[in-house]
Amino acid sequence: MIMNQKQLAAEKSIEFIKNGMTLGLGTGSTVYFLVNKLSSLIKQGLDVKYVSTSRQTTELAEGLGIKIININMVDKIHLTIDGADEVDPNLNGIKGGGGALLFEKVTATASEKVIWIIDSSKYVKQLGAFPLPVEVIPFGSNHIFRKFSEAGYNPRIRKIGEDIYLTDSGNEIIDLRLNAIQDSVKLEKEIKLIPGVVEVGLFNSIADTVIIGRENSTEILFRT
Amino acid sequence: MIMNQKQLAAEKSIEFIKNGMTLGLGTGSTVYFLVNKLSSLIKQGLDVKYVSTSRQTTELAEGLGIKIININMVDKIHLTIDGADEVDPNLNGIKGGGGALLFEKVTATASEKVIWIIDSSKYVKQLGAFPLPVEVIPFGSNHIFRKFSEAGYNPRIRKIGEDIYLTDSGNEIIDLRLNAIQDSVKLEKEIKLIPGVVEVGLFNSIADTVIIGRENSTEILFRT
Repeated sequence: MIMNQKQLAAEKSIEFIKNGMTLGLGTGSTVYFLVNKLSSLIKQGLDVKYVSTSRQTTELAEGLGIKIININMVDKIHLTIDGADEVDPNLNGIKGGGGALLFEKVTATASEKVIWIIDSSKYVKQLGAFPLPVEVIPFGSNHIFRKFSEAGYNPRIRKIGEDIYLTDSGNEIIDLRLNAIQDSVKLEKEIKLIPGVVEVGLFNSIADTVIIGRENSTEILFRT
Repeated sequence: MIMNQKQLAAEKSIEFIKNGMTLGLGTGSTVYFLVNKLSSLIKQGLDVKYVSTSRQTTELAEGLGIKIININMVDKIHLTIDGADEVDPNLNGIKGGGGALLFEKVTATASEKVIWIIDSSKYVKQLGAFPLPVEVIPFGSNHIFRKFSEAGYNPRIRKIGEDIYLTDSGNEIIDLRLNAIQDSVKLEKEIKLIPGVVEVGLFNSIADTVIIGRENSTEILFRT
């Protein structure tokens, strides 16, 4: 059977899952393969509890008969497996292309271990070619947008057709087209501290392990 | 006519309002006196545009015939007048006892000048006797609560009767009973950077002027 890179990475991550765990499920096209694989493993006896990082993933999982538990109802998340839009050699990354950055970051922060599964195109020398998503509350968002414009961050409000895109929390997303990010830790702090900013799509020192799907193999990177 | 301290401070702040301004209206029991005074001044010809920091203030103002403009529809806010729960000699403060901290901070940040109006009991040597409000998204809030407990911050989830209190943005508030805050700038950053935290009730270097209502007078402090 020929598998694409996303599927290869997703299925490799299964090896890190153990019976009895509480597992956080990320969001996106790579996690799609993970959730599908899990649904067949559950039929073979896999015994794991699941929390979800988005309405999209909850609907996917529940459609396959996987029960999702409210994150506030679990004491501990042993492992979260998620995708990423860009990952650099320090295993810092950009996430939020799918709009789920806020719940993904909260879930990752509450997890003992975080694995990202990506195809090889997502692994880059420097972050920033992918637009950086910033989740902001609608109240006053024009003023934040103007601030980003003045800073030269080339902001664009995310839309679906003519309508402004809204996250699962009812917030807006401003995508910053930065091209290259010199200091992702500094930039994350600078942006998150702006009143009205709810979360930034920079995930620094969050992933412990990254599984890269390649042509016919996977590569595993560990954060040092 | 005998006025209480809140009313004295509120009416003193009127002197800073000029025709043609766009004015941000804060929230709370001291701003109540300001809005009432404005409604009578409008009848006498005061010509100002208004934005509001809460549903509560919008309802109060509109009930008195004062039109509120959406904050995203104004280019500039010349002045915002708001209350505060505690103010220290550096004019840093704690806000959010009324639950409007998020919109208040966004509005203040978008304003050229910010005046706080308080009664004398709110002026303190050191911040922290008043519980520090932290606005968090409901998703994963139990994990943030636990983190605050472990840090010794004595968190309490805000409730109305048996129900969890929700802000105008649908978020929860965790009040931290700290007693004394040593470094309010450091604490604000530490807490705001936690994923899931939307805003912190520490307002550092935001107020330019504080008007304190006293027994029969007002005192005006300027940030240096």
